[in-house]
Amino acid sequence: MKTDLIEIQLNSEIMADGLLLKAWRDEVRLPNGKTAVREYLRHPGAVVMIPVFPNGDTMLVKQFRYPLRQTFIELPAGKLDGDEPIEVAARRELIEEIGYEPLRLEKIAEFFPCIGYSNEKMWLFIANDLKAATLKPDHDEFLEIMRLPFSEAVSMALHGQITDMKTICGLLLGRQYLEKLA
Amino acid sequence: MKTDLIEIQLNSEIMADGLLLKAWRDEVRLPNGKTAVREYLRHPGAVVMIPVFPNGDTMLVKQFRYPLRQTFIELPAGKLDGDEPIEVAARRELIEEIGYEPLRLEKIAEFFPCIGYSNEKMWLFIANDLKAATLKPDHDEFLEIMRLPFSEAVSMALHGQITDMKTICGLLLGRQYLEKLA
Repeated sequence: MKTDLIEIQLNSEIMADGLLLKAWRDEVRLPNGKTAVREYLRHPGAVVMIPVFPNGDTMLVKQFRYPLRQTFIELPAGKLDGDEPIEVAARRELIEEIGYEPLRLEKIAEFFPCIGYSNEKMWLFIANDLKAATLKPDHDEFLEIMRLPFSEAVSMALHGQITDMKTICGLLLGRQYLEKLA
Repeated sequence: MKTDLIEIQLNSEIMADGLLLKAWRDEVRLPNGKTAVREYLRHPGAVVMIPVFPNGDTMLVKQFRYPLRQTFIELPAGKLDGDEPIEVAARRELIEEIGYEPLRLEKIAEFFPCIGYSNEKMWLFIANDLKAATLKPDHDEFLEIMRLPFSEAVSMALHGQITDMKTICGLLLGRQYLEKLA
């Protein structure tokens, strides 16, 4: 089973150039010498934040997600804007989504939500020293903000009340990190 | 903040009809009455399995993922084939990817990897009573199989050596479930 696993790009063409979705179709050479087609999205990357208040609370947002036609409970998160540094995106999204500016951000993990068909990468931050700021919502984004104990959010992730994968991952990795500090 | 969050479909058109990727562009009515465009993928859904051997080992697979141009360590997983029931898909993918047939499957969670732009749903199974079967690999899928203690796989997920989100989620939710049984 020690075959080389790498696939080599032979050519690449855009198959959908949407406002949000940019899909590509590449022809590749497989490890066995055959060719195959790979279709995938190119994505700017995203940040996911765990707000942590001094009393142990966190904040989640409830949001309607059109692809699934249902609301989800999520950690605050958002896409990078152009060449924006990840810390700048994390601060911007927290102000936009929950109305708090983090004076200290710690990056604790990096992960990939959708490796089969998207190059999206996510960076996970703990957001500390939260200072109330004016909510600056995205003009077509509708959110409900929930403030609750971090341990309760973790319990919701473990018991199926939270089903968004970045939020489950973020809360469970965040728990590990915060417990090690404690 | 008690705005209704729901977005209503006004119309829908396909924007990319690939071999793998099916992308749609819908016009929607927002809670504030304005209209907006939503672009997203329609996906058949997928299964993710945690193989569990009597001695406490699990099996992961190492696979090159073209969208990121790198190899990832993953739980065995795969897309549903047409109308295939999820247990059938789970059994088929385990035989294809690791060469073991599970005589008992327990579904322990459901989650969504990519709610911003895909309707993909994933079902997570614990795969028990594994019986050696003939490996039936997909003809253009190249894998390396790793057998290791489940606890070691969990540790890799907690320490950044595993960065595939479904695998992090699967292992951390699986740990919770298996520890409750123990």
